[in-house]
Amino acid sequence: MGKVVTLGEIMLRLSTTVGERISTSRSFQAHYGGGEANVAVSLANFGHQVTFATKVPDNSLGMTVIQQIRRAGVDPSSILVGGPRLGTYYLEAGIGSRAAKVIYDRAGSSFAEICKNEWPDDLLEGADILHLSGITAALSPQWCELLIEFMQLAHQKGCKVSFDINYRGNLWSQAAAGDALARLLPHVDYCSAGKLDAIYLLGIEERASSDGEVMDYYQAIQEKYPSIELLYSTKRVVHSASSHELTGTLWQNGYYESVTHRLNPIVDRVGGGDAFSAGILHGLLTGKNPQELVDFATAAAALKHTVHGDANLFTAQEVEAYMSNGSGVISR
Amino acid sequence: MGKVVTLGEIMLRLSTTVGERISTSRSFQAHYGGGEANVAVSLANFGHQVTFATKVPDNSLGMTVIQQIRRAGVDPSSILVGGPRLGTYYLEAGIGSRAAKVIYDRAGSSFAEICKNEWPDDLLEGADILHLSGITAALSPQWCELLIEFMQLAHQKGCKVSFDINYRGNLWSQAAAGDALARLLPHVDYCSAGKLDAIYLLGIEERASSDGEVMDYYQAIQEKYPSIELLYSTKRVVHSASSHELTGTLWQNGYYESVTHRLNPIVDRVGGGDAFSAGILHGLLTGKNPQELVDFATAAAALKHTVHGDANLFTAQEVEAYMSNGSGVISR
Amino acid sequence: MGKVVTLGEIMLRLSTTVGERISTSRSFQAHYGGGEANVAVSLANFGHQVTFATKVPDNSLGMTVIQQIRRAGVDPSSILVGGPRLGTYYLEAGIGSRAAKVIYDRAGSSFAEICKNEWPDDLLEGADILHLSGITAALSPQWCELLIEFMQLAHQKGCKVSFDINYRGNLWSQAAAGDALARLLPHVDYCSAGKLDAIYLLGIEERASSDGEVMDYYQAIQEKYPSIELLYSTKRVVHSASSHELTGTLWQNGYYESVTHRLNPIVDRVGGGDAFSAGILHGLLTGKNPQELVDFATAAAALKHTVHGDANLFTAQEVEAYMSNGSGVISR
Amino acid sequence: MGKVVTLGEIMLRLSTTVGERISTSRSFQAHYGGGEANVAVSLANFGHQVTFATKVPDNSLGMTVIQQIRRAGVDPSSILVGGPRLGTYYLEAGIGSRAAKVIYDRAGSSFAEICKNEWPDDLLEGADILHLSGITAALSPQWCELLIEFMQLAHQKGCKVSFDINYRGNLWSQAAAGDALARLLPHVDYCSAGKLDAIYLLGIEERASSDGEVMDYYQAIQEKYPSIELLYSTKRVVHSASSHELTGTLWQNGYYESVTHRLNPIVDRVGGGDAFSAGILHGLLTGKNPQELVDFATAAAALKHTVHGDANLFTAQEVEAYMSNGSGVISR
Amino acid sequence: MGKVVTLGEIMLRLSTTVGERISTSRSFQAHYGGGEANVAVSLANFGHQVTFATKVPDNSLGMTVIQQIRRAGVDPSSILVGGPRLGTYYLEAGIGSRAAKVIYDRAGSSFAEICKNEWPDDLLEGADILHLSGITAALSPQWCELLIEFMQLAHQKGCKVSFDINYRGNLWSQAAAGDALARLLPHVDYCSAGKLDAIYLLGIEERASSDGEVMDYYQAIQEKYPSIELLYSTKRVVHSASSHELTGTLWQNGYYESVTHRLNPIVDRVGGGDAFSAGILHGLLTGKNPQELVDFATAAAALKHTVHGDANLFTAQEVEAYMSNGSGVISR
Amino acid sequence: MGKVVTLGEIMLRLSTTVGERISTSRSFQAHYGGGEANVAVSLANFGHQVTFATKVPDNSLGMTVIQQIRRAGVDPSSILVGGPRLGTYYLEAGIGSRAAKVIYDRAGSSFAEICKNEWPDDLLEGADILHLSGITAALSPQWCELLIEFMQLAHQKGCKVSFDINYRGNLWSQAAAGDALARLLPHVDYCSAGKLDAIYLLGIEERASSDGEVMDYYQAIQEKYPSIELLYSTKRVVHSASSHELTGTLWQNGYYESVTHRLNPIVDRVGGGDAFSAGILHGLLTGKNPQELVDFATAAAALKHTVHGDANLFTAQEVEAYMSNGSGVISR
Repeated sequence: MGKVVTLGEIMLRLSTTVGERISTSRSFQAHYGGGEANVAVSLANFGHQVTFATKVPDNSLGMTVIQQIRRAGVDPSSILVGGPRLGTYYLEAGIGSRAAKVIYDRAGSSFAEICKNEWPDDLLEGADILHLSGITAALSPQWCELLIEFMQLAHQKGCKVSFDINYRGNLWSQAAAGDALARLLPHVDYCSAGKLDAIYLLGIEERASSDGEVMDYYQAIQEKYPSIELLYSTKRVVHSASSHELTGTLWQNGYYESVTHRLNPIVDRVGGGDAFSAGILHGLLTGKNPQELVDFATAAAALKHTVHGDANLFTAQEVEAYMSNGSGVISR
Repeated sequence: MGKVVTLGEIMLRLSTTVGERISTSRSFQAHYGGGEANVAVSLANFGHQVTFATKVPDNSLGMTVIQQIRRAGVDPSSILVGGPRLGTYYLEAGIGSRAAKVIYDRAGSSFAEICKNEWPDDLLEGADILHLSGITAALSPQWCELLIEFMQLAHQKGCKVSFDINYRGNLWSQAAAGDALARLLPHVDYCSAGKLDAIYLLGIEERASSDGEVMDYYQAIQEKYPSIELLYSTKRVVHSASSHELTGTLWQNGYYESVTHRLNPIVDRVGGGDAFSAGILHGLLTGKNPQELVDFATAAAALKHTVHGDANLFTAQEVEAYMSNGSGVISR
Repeated sequence: MGKVVTLGEIMLRLSTTVGERISTSRSFQAHYGGGEANVAVSLANFGHQVTFATKVPDNSLGMTVIQQIRRAGVDPSSILVGGPRLGTYYLEAGIGSRAAKVIYDRAGSSFAEICKNEWPDDLLEGADILHLSGITAALSPQWCELLIEFMQLAHQKGCKVSFDINYRGNLWSQAAAGDALARLLPHVDYCSAGKLDAIYLLGIEERASSDGEVMDYYQAIQEKYPSIELLYSTKRVVHSASSHELTGTLWQNGYYESVTHRLNPIVDRVGGGDAFSAGILHGLLTGKNPQELVDFATAAAALKHTVHGDANLFTAQEVEAYMSNGSGVISR
Repeated sequence: MGKVVTLGEIMLRLSTTVGERISTSRSFQAHYGGGEANVAVSLANFGHQVTFATKVPDNSLGMTVIQQIRRAGVDPSSILVGGPRLGTYYLEAGIGSRAAKVIYDRAGSSFAEICKNEWPDDLLEGADILHLSGITAALSPQWCELLIEFMQLAHQKGCKVSFDINYRGNLWSQAAAGDALARLLPHVDYCSAGKLDAIYLLGIEERASSDGEVMDYYQAIQEKYPSIELLYSTKRVVHSASSHELTGTLWQNGYYESVTHRLNPIVDRVGGGDAFSAGILHGLLTGKNPQELVDFATAAAALKHTVHGDANLFTAQEVEAYMSNGSGVISR
Repeated sequence: MGKVVTLGEIMLRLSTTVGERISTSRSFQAHYGGGEANVAVSLANFGHQVTFATKVPDNSLGMTVIQQIRRAGVDPSSILVGGPRLGTYYLEAGIGSRAAKVIYDRAGSSFAEICKNEWPDDLLEGADILHLSGITAALSPQWCELLIEFMQLAHQKGCKVSFDINYRGNLWSQAAAGDALARLLPHVDYCSAGKLDAIYLLGIEERASSDGEVMDYYQAIQEKYPSIELLYSTKRVVHSASSHELTGTLWQNGYYESVTHRLNPIVDRVGGGDAFSAGILHGLLTGKNPQELVDFATAAAALKHTVHGDANLFTAQEVEAYMSNGSGVISR
Repeated sequence: MGKVVTLGEIMLRLSTTVGERISTSRSFQAHYGGGEANVAVSLANFGHQVTFATKVPDNSLGMTVIQQIRRAGVDPSSILVGGPRLGTYYLEAGIGSRAAKVIYDRAGSSFAEICKNEWPDDLLEGADILHLSGITAALSPQWCELLIEFMQLAHQKGCKVSFDINYRGNLWSQAAAGDALARLLPHVDYCSAGKLDAIYLLGIEERASSDGEVMDYYQAIQEKYPSIELLYSTKRVVHSASSHELTGTLWQNGYYESVTHRLNPIVDRVGGGDAFSAGILHGLLTGKNPQELVDFATAAAALKHTVHGDANLFTAQEVEAYMSNGSGVISR
């Protein structure tokens, strides 16, 4: 088992229940999550030693974040306490023909307002992997610089850098994201990036469509950023808000693809990509081969869609049981 | 944007929750709705000036109806207050193989007991469209006469008459409905009617089955009632209580049909037809061409199936976004 | 209408709600059920005179069992009161890709601890059918002997013996079950058994796979145990925890199969097999022919999947309406 | 233990939850109850053989009534099925300073529409007590006549007549009630009546106020109607909707009064008076002396206020344990 | 009936349910409210013509505010749409010994960011009263200036100015509030202010304690600000979070006090003061004398404590019924 | 801040909601707790380093226990995993006149089945206090021996022994408990024991009643067991299940008593005594004087009654704020 540090923002998600809109909701379901926190929780479920670093306000919401992280078996001792507020967002859950809808209310959060490294020097001590994402880079120019600083620090300590591009159109423009990524990616070892990222953010030229095309973009990205030894993402065919098909893809000296999982009905898709990332990192830390990596990660992501909340609540054994038994058979 | 008046009964619906029967229900969900009220609410969401005329008892249930109508942005000032009771019905919600089940408890309601025009003269002042339905005609012979009176009044004021046949087998017989419709339809401009209405209520001869057959019945209806300039209805393929396919059809100097929407899972189908009617009227008031009319209306109806309650809660912009983006993609 | 006695354990099921795991559940849904109790309730809904015999502790949980049984119209006067506890189990409800998960906590229950016939002599007086299951045989060697005693007693009283093998791998081994079944089956008239039972428990040799193979195993079982005049079971194609295909099969001097029902979404599959058994027994008691038997039973089982709880809540008229109308059409 | 028949209307109560008004309620809690049904259920809990006679419509609501009655251990075989509808009412639950509010929707119910004895001759066979109430008399002149017929029939069969005046101001006027009572009370053996009943309905002259005054009115009633051998009612000091003081009073050849129970908080007061009546009848059937009668009945009524629903859910043992232990001490 | 304009911020309140803390809450109850909005809703319930002016963001939360206001019968046409966000706060509901706890997350809201009058000129046209509060003054120096501007405008239009000091210690210091109030109060006609306001904000010297002392402070305030013709506030004795005693006090050429209302249990105290203010303004608009004013307002405030949400949901008739009947008696 | 180890059984509590009985409950609320676990959680909230040692089964229920403990900031690394089952109990929550009711289903649990020390040698390494209770001694004779072994081990390591007698009448007789306590108490430093314990379990002669009598019993216990340096318990006046008065008492070279807290309404009293114990231990670890000890502990216990679940969810700062501010005042 490995030691992993993830660093990023964690927010309070306020969601409607099935069949309600924000305007008809008399209550909101509360979940605390964020890409890096979700990866941390999944990896702890898989048995790794994980630290999640973030900053939360000194109030009940901040304390609840710490309790949630602790409950999951993730080390909360690098969660800073202070600053103005916890970022929030409202999720109008989609169903059938109706897509989910998000209202962000995250500006000015305790984490976003950070402008210099506030963590102690030993944050990355002994870590095998540091996991970061493009969302943090989007929060402020200072955060973009800080990310580079953390990536460099990681390499100094012999720690690999994992990075999920995770582009959010309402946080920054494609141009701004492209500039930042050009500075960040040379420091990255493992990268979650897809075809659209390649074309619109990384300046890879669009190719004529073909079946195996993700492969081509992976190859082009790696040629451009040779430090990246692993690229991965999921392909999602969206039939409706309740029904997707999910296929994992991976580039590691060659292209690998998982079987396609049919997700229907989807309970909660938030965190599905993070579950996939965590599955990839788990595979790397336990020495799986590329095909095993992508199979495990995709199965983990599929299971995530069956539970409420951002966090994937499955152990490695449960993911493996699902891979061998398929879905739906009760053992009793 | 136009001015529309709808007039009809509004009832309290008491529904079970998913997976329960009436006999196992410890609580019932409360929704207030009715065909004409639902059309009013949808049109207000689309930005029109809408008045809903009905009669409710002078108690908390009646006052709640007024609040609900007001909340939706519909003018409640033509809601009369008085009479014995609010009509109610119980809906045992269906799911999968199990069809929904309705128990009506609507006899003797404040609205049904009306036997002469109790509204002030200016009810239809300035209105572009008056929307009525066959359910009102079924309530009593007096109501059938009153409907004709309102239709004539509308035409005197230069207001178009929209009419949804909406046949309910447990309110009256096919013969009684046929007689009433024969008297009502000559006063109608826009009519929601389908193939079964044509054959069993309007006396159109049944034809040999063929793909495009709704078209033939529309044509026959229009030949019989030449005042009707627009006919519309939906075709519904019912796979189960949770899964339908919905196609909108329209006759306006020719036959038009929407793409087919797959509705799965269905959250609440009550009001789906009313959402379709409202979509049609919206299109008419905003000058859409026939194909746009039926496309918009069908999309609006599809979205209705994703929310609890009778009322369609979507703006014209949201319907259009759904038409261009398809379902299920979160924007964030 | 007939008179039926069923005898077996009834347990408290504590289930999670949709999208939750046991670890995230702040409450559990409570249902009281068990194979023989479920058959009893279904048969009472179908209009038969049914007695359910079991033993429950002398506390509120035991009293609740009696109330539930009484509510369903089943005679509770043969429910013994005493002993240490009510057996319980936890069901983490599955959905989509995630299978349901069961934690049994049933050891040492009031029923399981029974070691001699504690019921009065007239338990089977006037009964047409006595329904038992292999779960009871698995509880203890004493229970296995007692079952044989009850079966013999039934035949003395001119009462047919119905037996559902209902193998549970975590109650006993295949070898132990096989030994017990070899002693029990010679006393059985109607038997629910499937292909896997035949191969792994009854020592029937596995055959090369073919479409109609269940038929072959039925025939082989009947050759081995000629007293069995009726064999039945369902074939279930499991697409996911939410979507199955269900086909009923029957052997009664020949092989019969129902149409295939698509179950989607499944609300609660616990008790689906018991609903099928009850449908079979109902058909026998009302003189249906084999094809009618299997059609009715499969339709009853399909409807069961649309309601929460172990018990099938449908009357014979409702099952028949579903068979003729199909699913999903509201009558109003 | 005795045999009791109660006859009266049972309705569906639709209640708001704590802190909501009807206008803000998105759901209503469903309880089925009525004075005579509530007395029946209490007496069954106390171990008596009880039959409840009523009439319910032939739909799911009617069937649910039968199941609820059966569950409670009351014989439902005298529940007639047919007629137009189940009476309903809406209860806006009170709390603190805010009183509860009732909207009746009970006109035209299956029970109210009865105009001649529809029950078989053996309804009262072997009964010790027939329990009726003034609410039934208020439903129609026919019902008033029918009640007299039932009372006479009871006496012919050697069965005592219990009658709860239970005056409801919105069902009939004091004058009408007074006329009816003058005809009914000569046939009554046990009567629930209070001071206000005496003054406003029974024509007893109001006296100057004094502490023991209920006694005086009881005496006056009995002098007027010497057939009445037992009179009883509760005195209720209402501090708020959540806090009452309850004292039971009784006249049986002398005046008896219970200790005063402080009820705070009150969960649901509907059915409190019926629990008191059932306690009195239980005492009569088990040969308690007058002081024991009133003490037991008042304790039973107090406990009723701690549970949701009309029905008192306590056994005689539980009532007695409460009388000896007082409230609030957990045994573990 | 009068015409009233209220202007202020409206926020989304996210509350825990009874017995939960923020850290244990899996969902939050959503209520939309604010002092001036609450006053507007109460006055509309009392039958007045009321406009509420505020600014909300152009998203679902903003639209929900408009629907809520419209539902209550308040004119929403002066609600501006735009700006960054809707202010929110979290309320950990108190009970018994545990006080409620508030976490504000209101900085940078669409309303707070307003820095010049964005409303059309006719906002106050025809208004009898303009109601404002000190919370708005606390939001920014610009808002303080704007309030003075609105007050002057009101007086130009012959409209009275009502002002609730409503000091919030976590929005500004006592010194800052004191400075602002010194500039605002000369423009005020009706003022809600209490003893603590007088001493700590208005610079009135503290006096030796005595029973009738609020009277003295009212007199001193009025001497200092002679334009104020009416002063009012409530005295609250807090026994616990669930139990208060509430007494209304009023100065209008003399001191008046209501009876004391015992509030127990308290469902939701947020908005209690606003209900009192609305009661005062209702009395002024309907010509009540001072004693009637304070009695009505206190009764209205008492009822508010029995319902969830900020808004008082009672009509003038209901308040008066409560005043004459007292609490807790059901009429049926 | 200190280091504390607590060791004992933790169970799943399944509770009804307010106003329901077990027989009417369709769901049960799930809480995981036990005396020693509750003390551990409270102490962690107060800032101490706490380890909780127990044994749970290797299934989802056991894993949930570990997550709950971890969430609270208690070290779960001494929770053994294995054995047959998690002990459970059903709590029918009391309210008003109705006392709570408990059904235990704890026999044969993983913890109870332990018969020798299964923990590693370093369990008590560096601990200041080991907290145990009489419930563990009641589970089996082996557990009684093991407790003595742990007490001796603690003293060898310089660790104080805290012991809560916590007599449960349905686990063992007074005689058996008395024998065990006679062997255990000589090893105890801090002891929670009350007057009834003294008389019925410890053989202290009953004295004539007087106000300060708890003091006398404390003195007698200490004379009998001179190793005990601190004795404490609460006095509870039970007005109803919803209303108690709570006073803390303490003996430490003299008698100390807290002010009396009125608890009304009580949300959940389970764990109230454990919150008191934790408050005492917190005071000892932070050097409070006896009066401060008992005041803090009683305030902590009072707050516990305002939250659902066994665990006290308050920090030392929150307890102190409650002590200085009293209850019910919102800060905003």
